[in-house]
Order: sequence, then C-alpha cells, then structure tokens
Amino acid sequence: MLKHTYEGQECNLARTLEVVGERWTLLIVRSALLGTRRFEGFLDGLDIARNVLNKRLQRLMEYGVLERVPYQDRPLRHEYVLTPAGHDLAHAVVALTQWGERNLPHPARGPLGAVHRGCGGPIHAELRCAECARAIGGDEVLVPEDR
Amino acid sequence: MLKHTYEGQECNLARTLEVVGERWTLLIVRSALLGTRRFEGFLDGLDIARNVLNKRLQRLMEYGVLERVPYQDRPLRHEYVLTPAGHDLAHAVVALTQWGERNLPHPARGPLGAVHRGCGGPIHAELRCAECARAIGGDEVLVPEDR
Repeated sequence: MLKHTYEGQECNLARTLEVVGERWTLLIVRSALLGTRRFEGFLDGLDIARNVLNKRLQRLMEYGVLERVPYQDRPLRHEYVLTPAGHDLAHAVVALTQWGERNLPHPARGPLGAVHRGCGGPIHAELRCAECARAIGGDEVLVPEDR
Repeated sequence: MLKHTYEGQECNLARTLEVVGERWTLLIVRSALLGTRRFEGFLDGLDIARNVLNKRLQRLMEYGVLERVPYQDRPLRHEYVLTPAGHDLAHAVVALTQWGERNLPHPARGPLGAVHRGCGGPIHAELRCAECARAIGGDEVLVPEDR
C-alpha cells in the first residue's frame, strides 16, 4: 500500500540520507558550521580516524556539500569550505540537535546553541504551515495518505 | 581549539545521531509518520531485510521513539506506534527531505509533501530567530565561537 510512495527509495529523504545519513557526516558538517576548515581541525575536533575523515570529506565534496579551496601555495594546501548547499544543512543539524535537547535524557548543555548572525538571537528549528502561517508541532504533521 | 565543544561527542547532535543517524532509521520513522504501524507494513513499504527491520524497531523502542501496542488478542499481535518523541522527529524528517528537494539534482516529486493537520496547508521546515522573529537562511547561522 505504501510501496508506490517510495519508488524504490527514490524519494528525497532516502536520497538525502545517502548523502548525510551516517553519523560522522553530519558531525563534520556541524564542525564546518562551527568554523572548522582544515583537515587537522576536523581531526582534532571530532576524534575521528584519519582515513574515515578523508572518505567522508571526499563524499561531501562529490555531493557538493563542501568544496576544497587553496589557502597556501608552497607547499600547496587546501581547506574545506561549505557550499551554499552545505550551509543549507544547518536546518537539519539544528532540527536534530534540538530534538536531542527535547527528547534525550540528560541533554548536554554545550556552548553550541545556534545564533542568528544578524542580531545574535537564539535560533530554533520550526515547522510552519504555509497556509495558516502557524508554527506547528510534530503531531500536527500529516501526509496525503492520511487525509 | 574546538575539542572542548564536543566533550567526547557528548553533544546533543552526536547523541541524536546515535539514535537516528543511520539510513534505515529515519526511513522507518518517516514510514510511521505516513501511518505505517505493522511489521509487514514497514517491510513492504521499505524493501528492508526482515532482520535489519527487527533490529531497527527494537532500537527505536529502546530510545523511546516507538512503542509496541497490542492490536489483537488471539494470537497476540502488536503494532508499532510513534511516541511524542517519535512525532517530534517530524522536524528533522521534513528538514532533511526539503534539503534534498532544494539541493539534489532531479528532486523526486513524490506525494510525500507534509501537510498541516489543522488546515491542510503545506509544511516547511524553517530556522527562526527567537529575538527578531525572522525566518533565517542556513548562511545566517552562527555558533558562539564565531562571534
């Protein structure tokens, strides 16, 4: 009954999870959102194995989430910079982080709350209805099959 | 320099990814948001191996995302129902799906657009500043280290 809606997993969620649906990948993106740009920086911040980090960075570049930009000529050195698609992952990173704050026992209280560049206010991930313009809860979300 | 912010990965994003940071897991949650409740329904909709599905459902119950509820006495049969924490994952599912719509080539146009139960309008995942109340883009997100 639901099968047709997945079209062999060719839906946008399944395709997005191909790109970021792996524990390290979103932690690397979060690290980049935090300002990390260099291989050694990701390595230090994440406590990840060098070869795993390398594979994940390659994958994120293939998918257009990060790009490699030279920052030094001799010897040539590159850093990893978020593309617009990479910055756009802030939605998912904030939504997942705030889910943990709300739902996991003993939420960590790190200094990682996202803030608005413009005014410095705290940022919240919301679901909003384009019709009535209200912010809505997860239990008010329906998909067409339920109507 | 960034290490202390991760506290051995004890941040909320890392902890959330322990629960849902695996391709199948969020597809199972999406399937549940679509109305699937029974083991065979998840199996059909997701084209997942029976033993993998079983492990993922167990894990989601351990973490309080799904709960098992009896729907039949003889023989006893259970179905899997989203808890409030499970419904709350709609934020992340919608944010990730809409990232794919915006950023992956050839976005799938499935019938899976989320709608608001109250008025039937389309739902969008947003980041909003609690200070100035504006919806903000991923490139306007800062974390304290950048200030």
